[in-house]
Amino acid sequence: MPTIARGYAATDASKPLTPFTFERRDPNPDDVVISIKYSGICHTDIHQARNEWGNAVYPMVPGHEIAGIVTAVGSKVTKFKVGDHVGVGCFVDSCVGCATRDFDNEQYMPGLVFTYNGLEADGKTATQGGYSDSIVVKEGYVLAIPENLPLDASAPLLCAGVTLFSPLRHYNVGPGKKVAIIGMGGLGHLSVKIGSAMGADITVLSQTLSKKEDGLKLGAKEYYATSDASTFDKLAGAFDLIICTVSAEIDWNAYLGLLKINGTMVLLGIPEKAIPVHAFSLVPGRRSLAGSMIGSIKETQEMLDFCGKHGIVSEIEKIGIEQVNEAFERVLKSDVRYRFVIDMASIA
Amino acid sequence: MPTIARGYAATDASKPLTPFTFERRDPNPDDVVISIKYSGICHTDIHQARNEWGNAVYPMVPGHEIAGIVTAVGSKVTKFKVGDHVGVGCFVDSCVGCATRDFDNEQYMPGLVFTYNGLEADGKTATQGGYSDSIVVKEGYVLAIPENLPLDASAPLLCAGVTLFSPLRHYNVGPGKKVAIIGMGGLGHLSVKIGSAMGADITVLSQTLSKKEDGLKLGAKEYYATSDASTFDKLAGAFDLIICTVSAEIDWNAYLGLLKINGTMVLLGIPEKAIPVHAFSLVPGRRSLAGSMIGSIKETQEMLDFCGKHGIVSEIEKIGIEQVNEAFERVLKSDVRYRFVIDMASIA
Repeated sequence: MPTIARGYAATDASKPLTPFTFERRDPNPDDVVISIKYSGICHTDIHQARNEWGNAVYPMVPGHEIAGIVTAVGSKVTKFKVGDHVGVGCFVDSCVGCATRDFDNEQYMPGLVFTYNGLEADGKTATQGGYSDSIVVKEGYVLAIPENLPLDASAPLLCAGVTLFSPLRHYNVGPGKKVAIIGMGGLGHLSVKIGSAMGADITVLSQTLSKKEDGLKLGAKEYYATSDASTFDKLAGAFDLIICTVSAEIDWNAYLGLLKINGTMVLLGIPEKAIPVHAFSLVPGRRSLAGSMIGSIKETQEMLDFCGKHGIVSEIEKIGIEQVNEAFERVLKSDVRYRFVIDMASIA
Repeated sequence: MPTIARGYAATDASKPLTPFTFERRDPNPDDVVISIKYSGICHTDIHQARNEWGNAVYPMVPGHEIAGIVTAVGSKVTKFKVGDHVGVGCFVDSCVGCATRDFDNEQYMPGLVFTYNGLEADGKTATQGGYSDSIVVKEGYVLAIPENLPLDASAPLLCAGVTLFSPLRHYNVGPGKKVAIIGMGGLGHLSVKIGSAMGADITVLSQTLSKKEDGLKLGAKEYYATSDASTFDKLAGAFDLIICTVSAEIDWNAYLGLLKINGTMVLLGIPEKAIPVHAFSLVPGRRSLAGSMIGSIKETQEMLDFCGKHGIVSEIEKIGIEQVNEAFERVLKSDVRYRFVIDMASIA
C-alpha cells in the first residue's frame, strides 16, 4: 500500500514553502520504508526550491539530509530491520540506464537519481525529499546511522558530512598533514571535527575571527582571518590540502599560494563566475585545483561509521517545519551555528 | 685554471645573439668539466634572451639542453670520468641558502640556480648556459647520458624530456591509462614517444592533422584535430590524464570536459592570461587542473635511463650556431620538426 506522506513543498520559484501531502510508493521487495525524524537544511535546497539552477519541477519537497527510523522492509531486504536508525543522502539510485556501473564513483556517473527534484528509475515519477514524514528508498541507498549518535544532529552528515569526508579521504588526510578549511559554516565546522579526528593539523581560514573560539573548541589548531592580508604572507606554502567550502568570489590565486609543493585545493561549491587561475599558481610547485562532489554510498557509510567511532555529529539549531522559510533566509545570511535541522515531530 | 669558453650571447633584449668569449670557473673538487657537443633550443631561451620575463642580465649565454663529453673531473668526483657522455639541464645547483632541502622536489624549492641567467652559489657570479663549447658543473647536477643514445638527439631530453616525463610518472601513466597530449611540438612529440613506451594509450590533440602521420609513427594510437568541434563530443570523458604542452589561449573548459572521473589536466607552460576555470568543469567528476615544471635531478636521470632502455631520443634539426637567430624565428612560428639542436663543432 502506498503511504501518505505529509511535508512542505515549493510550488513556485518565488513563493514560500507550504504544507503538501503526497503519496510514497508501495515498497518493492528491495525497499526500506523510513519514518523521517529529522531533515537538515542544505544551501542546495534553497537553490533548488527557487529554481536557481533552472531545472526545478514543482511541487518540490526539498531535503537530502534525512535521518529516521525503519518502519517496514521489503521481502528481499537483508541489511535493515524495523527500528534501525538510518539515513538517506543526496541520491536514491544510481547508474540508472548505464551500461557501466561504478560503485566507487557513482555520484559522478550519469544515471544518478537525486533524492528530490529527480526522476525515479521509471523515468517519470518525481522524487520527493526529506522535508516530509516518510520516505521509501531502495536498500542499497539507505545508510546505517550508528546507534550511539543522536539522530537529530546526525542528519547533516548525510550531505555535508560526506561532502567533506570524501576529499579528506581521497587526499589521504591524516597525521602529519596540514589542512586548511576555507569557511566556518555547515561544511566548514564538520571539516574541522572530521579532519582533526583523522589526525590532521587543521587551520580555519574565515573572513573574520568571530567563530574562532568555536573553531578551536571543535579541533582546529589555528584560526586566521582572511580579511587580514598578513594571513596570506604568514601561511604562504603552508598546506598539503585546502578545502574550500565557500562559493563566494575570493582571491583564488592568493589561496593557491598557501599550498605546499604538490598541494591541492579542492572546491566543494560552484561559484557563479569562472575562477581565474594563473598558471604561475600551479606550475612552479606542481599544485592542483580540484573539485569534489558529495561521495559514494560506500564512502557515506564509511563516514557514518567513522563519526560513530569518534562521536562526531553536526552542531545544529533545531526548528519546527513551519520555520523553514525563515530558516532559508537565515541560511542566506550565514546566520546559523552551524546547521538547521527540521524536527519532523512538528508536522501535526 | 679557468677555461676560456666560446659561445653566443644575447647582449640586449632586442638584438640578435652574437659571438661571446668568457671564462668558466676553475673546477672545484666536486666539479665536472664538460666539452659541450650539442645544445637544444628551448622556447624558454627566447623568452629569456629577449627579457620577456623581465629578469634578464646581459650578456646572457642561453641553453639548458646540454649534451657533451667529460674532459676533466675534480678530485672528489666519483660518478663521472673523462670521456663519459653527460648532460646538463635547467639547473646547476639547488636549495642554495635553504634550511630545508628536498631532493625529490628541488625544482620547486627556493634556492634553485638556473643554468643561465642565474647566480652561482656565491650569489654574484652569473651562470652561462649551453650555447657555448664548455661548462663546469657540480657533479650532483650532471646527468649520465646512456652510451647507446646519439648525443645530438639526446640534448632535448635534458629539458623537454624531463618536463613531460615528470608528470607522466607522477600521475602513474602506464598500461590501461588513456593519455591525451595537447600540441605536437618539441614537448608533444617526446610525450608521444615516452608515454607510449610507458605502455599508455596516447592520443594527440593538435590544431590540425598536418603532423598526424608523424604522431602515429612515433607511437600515438589516435590523432585528432581540435579545430574540428566534433572532436570534443567524440572524446568527452575519455582521458585519465591530459598533458597540455601549449601556452596558447585554448578553450580550457572544453578540454577539461575530456577528462574521465578523477582525471587530471596538467599544464606545462605558462599562458599569458589567467585560465577561466568553471567549477562545473571540476566538481562533478572530481577532476583536477594541475601544473608541473621540469623535474628533479633524480627524475631526470630516471628519464635518461628509461630513454636509453627504450632507444628514445628527440627528433631534431641540427644547425650551426651562426643559425641560432634564424632558428629562434622559426621556433616562434613552430616551424621545426621537432627540436633545433646546435652542433657546437660549428664554433670555430
